[in-house]
Amino acid sequence: MLQKRHNRLIWLYPKAFLLVLFSVTVALAADPLPSWNDGTAKQSILAFVEKVTTPDSAGFVPVLERIATFDNDGTLWAEQPMYFQLFFTLDRVREMAPQHPEWKDTEPFASLLKGDVKAALAGGDKAILEIVMATHAGMSTIEFEKIVKKWIATARHPETKRLFTEMVYQPMLELLAYLRANGFKTFIVSGGGIEFMRPWAEKVYGIPPEQVIGSSIKTKFEMRDGKPVLIRLAEINFIDDKEGKPVGINAHIGRRPIAAFGNSDGDLQMLQWTTGGEEPRLALYVHHTDPEREWAYDRTSHVGQLDKGLDEATEKGWLVVDMKADWNSIYPPEK
Amino acid sequence: MLQKRHNRLIWLYPKAFLLVLFSVTVALAADPLPSWNDGTAKQSILAFVEKVTTPDSAGFVPVLERIATFDNDGTLWAEQPMYFQLFFTLDRVREMAPQHPEWKDTEPFASLLKGDVKAALAGGDKAILEIVMATHAGMSTIEFEKIVKKWIATARHPETKRLFTEMVYQPMLELLAYLRANGFKTFIVSGGGIEFMRPWAEKVYGIPPEQVIGSSIKTKFEMRDGKPVLIRLAEINFIDDKEGKPVGINAHIGRRPIAAFGNSDGDLQMLQWTTGGEEPRLALYVHHTDPEREWAYDRTSHVGQLDKGLDEATEKGWLVVDMKADWNSIYPPEK
Repeated sequence: MLQKRHNRLIWLYPKAFLLVLFSVTVALAADPLPSWNDGTAKQSILAFVEKVTTPDSAGFVPVLERIATFDNDGTLWAEQPMYFQLFFTLDRVREMAPQHPEWKDTEPFASLLKGDVKAALAGGDKAILEIVMATHAGMSTIEFEKIVKKWIATARHPETKRLFTEMVYQPMLELLAYLRANGFKTFIVSGGGIEFMRPWAEKVYGIPPEQVIGSSIKTKFEMRDGKPVLIRLAEINFIDDKEGKPVGINAHIGRRPIAAFGNSDGDLQMLQWTTGGEEPRLALYVHHTDPEREWAYDRTSHVGQLDKGLDEATEKGWLVVDMKADWNSIYPPEK
Repeated sequence: MLQKRHNRLIWLYPKAFLLVLFSVTVALAADPLPSWNDGTAKQSILAFVEKVTTPDSAGFVPVLERIATFDNDGTLWAEQPMYFQLFFTLDRVREMAPQHPEWKDTEPFASLLKGDVKAALAGGDKAILEIVMATHAGMSTIEFEKIVKKWIATARHPETKRLFTEMVYQPMLELLAYLRANGFKTFIVSGGGIEFMRPWAEKVYGIPPEQVIGSSIKTKFEMRDGKPVLIRLAEINFIDDKEGKPVGINAHIGRRPIAAFGNSDGDLQMLQWTTGGEEPRLALYVHHTDPEREWAYDRTSHVGQLDKGLDEATEKGWLVVDMKADWNSIYPPEK
């Protein structure tokens, strides 16, 4: 009966039927990862996705368990010559300086205001913590969101002169979309500030705030003028880096990812945790090998160091993307 | 042209067309909340959902922002004569006792093992913390998940003799499904243990682990015999109650809910935070008023006290569900 109806429909609407056929063919032929050159990395990704999405196959993974986690700095967007959140922080120091005349004579602020970032950061973690707390705490979560949104809308990278949100990797945007089209839920798992990423991650990556995991400071619920607010306190809550990444993943997601993507030793434990589950699993390192179009750095870099991770990737057969060879474009076209 | 095709289709398949029409009519007529008696609570819920889902209306809320948060104990399932997680904890103490001969002479365990819960809990928070840590920490997250799954599969309530997972509220199950059918993302925000709820929340409530927020102890990433594990430590990480609820919501979701559901003073700040956003917002308290079919308690109860919340609900016009009058069934039918 069904067959008969179909036949009659074809007879009545041959053009419509051909159009449907054509669309299906185009969809099958379309390359979901056009910025990836043909090679091991691309073929392995495609094969992995086919495996976990093929019903009744040994590697099939139900949709709800298709969790993919992505580092941000150096994996989804660039991170040289320093983490982009640090540019935000320095801009904040300059903007706040008029309200803090004492900063002129107090390190690390004095050096920062003179433009000497290196001297300012010479104080190590203590200095960084002081700068972060001075610029990221003391306001409500809503105020901080506004500050980030305002900055990210116009701030540009000192070398490329592009918006920071346009220094995201086109191949990774395609990968995010491809995974989601195949039933994956995509998460950011970054050492960066969770409240720094959330205001723009949805627009830029298609990742909603509830799927962003990052480092955080504590917040406190209060009533101010009869209105409830969450105040950001100058106290570390969680560092989402190295051993912290599996902890953050467990706290926020409560399932082990089946695919994880990183670029540095800070992501090693996330990749270990991911591949520690039953097969199939996908672990991928983005290796920065392109000094012309982006940057080239790994074992000795002060930002995004990839040393132990590179050894372990080789040893365990994880995918290592050679940015120069595997990617035919780096950033999306300029708007 | 489109119209013409439709006409020809109707002419060719009158029965199929009637079937479609019939299905639409049934769907429109079906009551999404059959266990809710007609009244203010039900009508207000229906009106709220219609308002936020009607495109081009003043109250329209985009799908991504349709966040609804639910307390668990006393809101989604019962909580008398004590929190169900406490039954789990006591069963754990009994099961672990042979490995801890010292418990026979050490409080609060000695009293617990004699069945004197009241004496055991006389030590207050310190005693409770000691019992929780002894039973909830010291194993991997995977081992703990197995322990919870095994217990929840067979443990029964001492009075009703039903499985604890069958002491969920049928009207709330309908509400969860109704909200999700209207594009809402539903979250649990509970003072209970996050890792205690996750192993069964998906099956029982349709809420996946990444949408469960709760209290937690710290975990630590380690390699054991070359395998990565997360070990549960005997140290409080976060208490998701009272002022903690908006903090937990912000940490996990990063958006303010537009609807929140609770039953006690522990949910007050979550309801304040939710209604503190721009209209439309829905805040609802389940009021336990049915001593025959469930329990009746509020201002002076030692479990799920609802005192300040009841005053504020009246003052601010939040919905208060009268369990006895508003719900025509309490639990799902026995299996």
